[in-house]
Amino acid sequence: MNRKLTTCFIATLMFFGVSMKAENKKLRPVDYVNPFIGTTNFGTTNPGAVMPNGLMSVVPFNVMGSNDNKYDKDARWWSTPYEYHNVFFTGFSHVNLSGVGCPDVGSLLLMPTTGELNVDYKQYGSTYKNEVAHPGYYSNTLTKYGIKTEVTADKRSSIARFTFPQGESHILLNLGEGLTNESGAFIRRISDNEFEGMKVLGTFCYNPQAVFPIYFYMKVNKQPKRSGYWKKQRLMSGVEAEWDKDNGKYKLYTEYKREIAGDDIGVFIDFDTQQNEEVEVLMGVSFVSMENARLNAEKELAQTTFDSLRLRAEEAWNNDLSKILVEGGSEDQKTVFYTALYHTLIHPNILQDVNGQYPTLERGDIAAVSNGDRYTVFSLWDTYRNVHQLLTLVYPVRQQHMLQSMLAMYDEHGWLPKWELYGRETYTMEGDPSIPVIVDSWLKGLRGFDINKAYEAMRKGATTPGPQNKLRPDNDDYMKLGYVPLREQYDNSVSHALEYYIADNALSRLAKALGKDSDAKLFYNRSLGYKHYYSKEYGTFRPILPSGKFYSPFNPLQGENFEPNPGFHEGNAWNYTFYVPHDIKGLTQLMGGSKAFVDKLQMVFDKGYYDPANEPDIAYPHLFSYFKGEEWRTQKEIKRLLNTYFKNAPDGIPGNDDTGTMSAWAVFNMIGFYPDCPGEPAYTLTTPVFDKVTIKLSKEQWGTDQLVITSKRSDKEAYRINNITVGGKQYKSYRISHKDLINARNIHFDVK
Amino acid sequence: MNRKLTTCFIATLMFFGVSMKAENKKLRPVDYVNPFIGTTNFGTTNPGAVMPNGLMSVVPFNVMGSNDNKYDKDARWWSTPYEYHNVFFTGFSHVNLSGVGCPDVGSLLLMPTTGELNVDYKQYGSTYKNEVAHPGYYSNTLTKYGIKTEVTADKRSSIARFTFPQGESHILLNLGEGLTNESGAFIRRISDNEFEGMKVLGTFCYNPQAVFPIYFYMKVNKQPKRSGYWKKQRLMSGVEAEWDKDNGKYKLYTEYKREIAGDDIGVFIDFDTQQNEEVEVLMGVSFVSMENARLNAEKELAQTTFDSLRLRAEEAWNNDLSKILVEGGSEDQKTVFYTALYHTLIHPNILQDVNGQYPTLERGDIAAVSNGDRYTVFSLWDTYRNVHQLLTLVYPVRQQHMLQSMLAMYDEHGWLPKWELYGRETYTMEGDPSIPVIVDSWLKGLRGFDINKAYEAMRKGATTPGPQNKLRPDNDDYMKLGYVPLREQYDNSVSHALEYYIADNALSRLAKALGKDSDAKLFYNRSLGYKHYYSKEYGTFRPILPSGKFYSPFNPLQGENFEPNPGFHEGNAWNYTFYVPHDIKGLTQLMGGSKAFVDKLQMVFDKGYYDPANEPDIAYPHLFSYFKGEEWRTQKEIKRLLNTYFKNAPDGIPGNDDTGTMSAWAVFNMIGFYPDCPGEPAYTLTTPVFDKVTIKLSKEQWGTDQLVITSKRSDKEAYRINNITVGGKQYKSYRISHKDLINARNIHFDVK
Repeated sequence: MNRKLTTCFIATLMFFGVSMKAENKKLRPVDYVNPFIGTTNFGTTNPGAVMPNGLMSVVPFNVMGSNDNKYDKDARWWSTPYEYHNVFFTGFSHVNLSGVGCPDVGSLLLMPTTGELNVDYKQYGSTYKNEVAHPGYYSNTLTKYGIKTEVTADKRSSIARFTFPQGESHILLNLGEGLTNESGAFIRRISDNEFEGMKVLGTFCYNPQAVFPIYFYMKVNKQPKRSGYWKKQRLMSGVEAEWDKDNGKYKLYTEYKREIAGDDIGVFIDFDTQQNEEVEVLMGVSFVSMENARLNAEKELAQTTFDSLRLRAEEAWNNDLSKILVEGGSEDQKTVFYTALYHTLIHPNILQDVNGQYPTLERGDIAAVSNGDRYTVFSLWDTYRNVHQLLTLVYPVRQQHMLQSMLAMYDEHGWLPKWELYGRETYTMEGDPSIPVIVDSWLKGLRGFDINKAYEAMRKGATTPGPQNKLRPDNDDYMKLGYVPLREQYDNSVSHALEYYIADNALSRLAKALGKDSDAKLFYNRSLGYKHYYSKEYGTFRPILPSGKFYSPFNPLQGENFEPNPGFHEGNAWNYTFYVPHDIKGLTQLMGGSKAFVDKLQMVFDKGYYDPANEPDIAYPHLFSYFKGEEWRTQKEIKRLLNTYFKNAPDGIPGNDDTGTMSAWAVFNMIGFYPDCPGEPAYTLTTPVFDKVTIKLSKEQWGTDQLVITSKRSDKEAYRINNITVGGKQYKSYRISHKDLINARNIHFDVK
Repeated sequence: MNRKLTTCFIATLMFFGVSMKAENKKLRPVDYVNPFIGTTNFGTTNPGAVMPNGLMSVVPFNVMGSNDNKYDKDARWWSTPYEYHNVFFTGFSHVNLSGVGCPDVGSLLLMPTTGELNVDYKQYGSTYKNEVAHPGYYSNTLTKYGIKTEVTADKRSSIARFTFPQGESHILLNLGEGLTNESGAFIRRISDNEFEGMKVLGTFCYNPQAVFPIYFYMKVNKQPKRSGYWKKQRLMSGVEAEWDKDNGKYKLYTEYKREIAGDDIGVFIDFDTQQNEEVEVLMGVSFVSMENARLNAEKELAQTTFDSLRLRAEEAWNNDLSKILVEGGSEDQKTVFYTALYHTLIHPNILQDVNGQYPTLERGDIAAVSNGDRYTVFSLWDTYRNVHQLLTLVYPVRQQHMLQSMLAMYDEHGWLPKWELYGRETYTMEGDPSIPVIVDSWLKGLRGFDINKAYEAMRKGATTPGPQNKLRPDNDDYMKLGYVPLREQYDNSVSHALEYYIADNALSRLAKALGKDSDAKLFYNRSLGYKHYYSKEYGTFRPILPSGKFYSPFNPLQGENFEPNPGFHEGNAWNYTFYVPHDIKGLTQLMGGSKAFVDKLQMVFDKGYYDPANEPDIAYPHLFSYFKGEEWRTQKEIKRLLNTYFKNAPDGIPGNDDTGTMSAWAVFNMIGFYPDCPGEPAYTLTTPVFDKVTIKLSKEQWGTDQLVITSKRSDKEAYRINNITVGGKQYKSYRISHKDLINARNIHFDVK
């Protein structure tokens, strides 16, 4: 998708060889994806080339090296390799995170240049134009050099194609810089045009011990004139500084042919190129070893050209995106929808190499999967809400493999994952978010994983005392008191407890289903502990001191815009007060009945307390539908939120996409239902955006091959559901079980 | 040898288990070695553990980290890991240079500590006491920790034994620091107590491209409580700095178990130790690969204990040192002698691993020797004068292997070596110093190398035009003009040319011996070109400008104490004016006859222009012996120089030992002859220090198994040779051919 967006949308498609005329040929789902959506406004997505759930991604890196950039990775909190409004390109980063809020990975920066060799990114970086992105493909033209760049990716490998002008040309691989705050790399020269190595990554969300290596293999398809290394030299003083002409500078190693290591090193490769000469760079990556990185590249890229790989990636995306076909709605709505679906299929991504090997969680050794995929990048506090529900419904085999991966992590580390990243547990955010993911899948009927082991693992997290508990560090308080008191000024204690309630409620549902009645009762009772936090005085949750008294002075609005806030993590009390999806009935009673609840919830929207980009409140709109006659409020707010925050524009995601969580919110709400209570196999029905939605289901998994959702609206702006039929029969509720949904075959909304 | 030197010499020997009584048991040659000689006064030798010509050396590193040190490696020009007067020990460096004038290697710093873990060498370093050194063994006690350290070495591996107090103990391996100015290292954890890795070394004499890797394998013989890495973090600013608690500090990687890389990294290993618990660290090194480093350690240290290895090293040294047995002379003279002989057997050292593999010169690939040793560390501008002559005579197989190594370097790099260091040509100093080494050996009858290839290689250096000539960059001028004019203010042009004359004279001798008469004439005539430089006005050599005129203003004394000096390298005109060993006759004519020559040479000594530590003039004393009746001056000056500059004391070498060159000067002069004209198979006879010297010769090589040199002096202070018999026959000359020397069986000096 061209970054000039829809205006040159068709031109772009034609330019890049999609041989169709828009007016008489139907666009495919993949053609609707605009990878620039979410690339500003802190959406932290990127327009790079990636396969569905692929390990490799190749992203234009434009967040360092120039004051002309609007945002600089080192000048502020920053978590993405690409920003739409930045202008200074310093290479393609290989392996990146999409939609996260902390910096990591985004390294192995590959850059083509011309003229005199310069290895200082502040100097070799370039502005660019003609930016084009499409699933599995990205291109721009570097204005400083007149080089056209193109990249495409397979699952663990990639090809970059650089079209050079005539003259002296260079390809640089910079291992000194990247989005990660870790440093240190190693390179081994295999030949003039082949290199392998590793780089240290990690410290995601500033966890100093969450460190991991990436390994790479790189091959250039043209014999160079010369190749070598560079390394930024340590600053010396005195006599040494006088004698060492490279002191403090980037030193070129022109004659050294063995391995190099250091904080800030790179490879340069020099060529003489003809006008419009294309040079391709093959890259393979692995988190196991340099050998595997090479193996990945060799296996995946055998008999592959740049164009055939690009086509392969595009077809893979089109296959996945075609699982949900939408008709009706505007072109922009289709673009928003398919781009959101695209964003939900980036993470978790596969971790294992072509030979099945992967690094175990926290144990540091190497294991291998015999079948299926080993997944990584589990941002579970985000994704337990909707991403895994979407995968369960539409991509159940992938969800099965993710569950298997989570249980393997338990085997390896002794604990289910919280925020797993390339073999390290980063312990980012709070709660016990594996539980709703596992329970939700199981109760919906997904199998293929060891539920007894899963139960043991979940119960361990729920019942191990605090000091030994890696998932629930405050479990002593929680188990004894039923809540977590505020023990430090900014300890997020209420946020912690609210997550435990949700997890325990889900666990109680599973315990009941497995016939573990006393556990079911235990965890159910625990899940109601949220009531401790309810302050009648403020009508919100409020931190509790170790004394048992509420925290004072209290301001329920404190915590906006990431302001530190006692008891609450990245939000204010309003963003958390309705955050009891498993007991809306109980919360309603606490608040004084249905009317009081609905009025207060409406007030949250009306006064702008609702944060569309913070997970604890993103299911608030659906809560109206628990109250008969109030469902229109859900439908109205969802329409408003979709229209306001989800746009075919670079700022078309309201904030961090959170590895697809914002996007999954849009996907579900645009097709007419949303899983607002993780762990409960049910959805709230709401107004679809499209006239017709065809969800292709796995017959093997769900016993049925599709679900068609149709809508008929009285006029274009209509949003209120007037009537619902499910399987041709009138449906009175706005809540539908997963079982009923998959068996419906047809759901029809009459919208006024 | 205890650093308190001879006063506790016997006590030390007994303390360390040499079970003898000095009064009734003869000390072995190895017992006389005092490794502290040359460890101050810029001798740049060290007291570390090393095998004869071994690759591995383990040296107490005390030249950084404390203001209490007298000399700091980063505060001034510095070239040795150890200084006698320094006090702050920061670990043992593995693989070191002995007696050089530029910094390199001296890395892999191994340090034991106790108490709370601290990885900052400025803080973990310690003062020390009870320092003991003996060939193949070194020990001290770290006063800060109460740890006794001991190290011993095999050829490519070593064992350190640390005796800890009770409590929390640590072993640190620091790869961030070292004597080298290069940085960057890589470590792979094999298990809790085994690590392997590499470090980048090089830039010897600030040659930025002379870079090479060292590989290591390390194993601790006690299961640790914990082990991990550290890395000095890059300094960040702004938000990143606020969030990263390790910013700019040494960060501990306690949970990371994969490879690490960076500029300043290390390994820590934690133990609980009992009182007096010994922990041993096995190290292997290689310049080929980590695998080979491990293989070297495993092969060499199999079935080896610390004590057995120490004994093995001691025996190896005693075997080598016993090739020359001296009797008579004082204990100090024996100590000076055997320590000097010890210092001549450190470099060149072997390079190949136990499987024969080694890195080729400059080509960057790996080759293997099928038999013999591959040598490295060829400081040829120094050693061509006397070290190789000593090796040829007493250790001919080693010299053969060195010649084979030099020819292999020619095959690999296309040029004979100049100053080769671990596979890199550093191009340090000037001239074409392989030529006198090769010619000298061949004309003395050493065989076992391809003389035709050697001739081709030498002729290439002598005849290739300047721009393409890696050994003689100014060969165009030299070949055209017969001298090298001063083209830059400090270009050392005279020094360059003087070396070419010496090399060409040697080459002409070989050409003649090989029947290449026209070459012989060509190179002989070239070798007389020194006459261009003779200034009648000053009576010295003097730089010549490109115009053909002498350089003005001219001060023959400029250049003392490393002051930059037009035309002359590290010396003044007087240090070079008699530097024509191959044509003393011609030089005498230039100077106006024998008396003028002798008077002027005597003036150089009398006025203190002679520099006992600068190679170009170190054969000056022997020149007197070219003049009948003046030989006593040689004998007198040699006695004075030996007594003044070669002492059983840390400052007992007059300056840089230059990989044994100063020491070889002492060795020869102490036993009665000196090879003052490299390339001419002859020696000047002078007064031996000892009453009896027995040189064990290789019967296979020389056809005779020993040479006994006896002296009878009228009184203790007598130095003038009154009479000489060679093979029992009176000998009238003070010059003896190599052939006559080895066939003599006995040489007797009557000294008055």
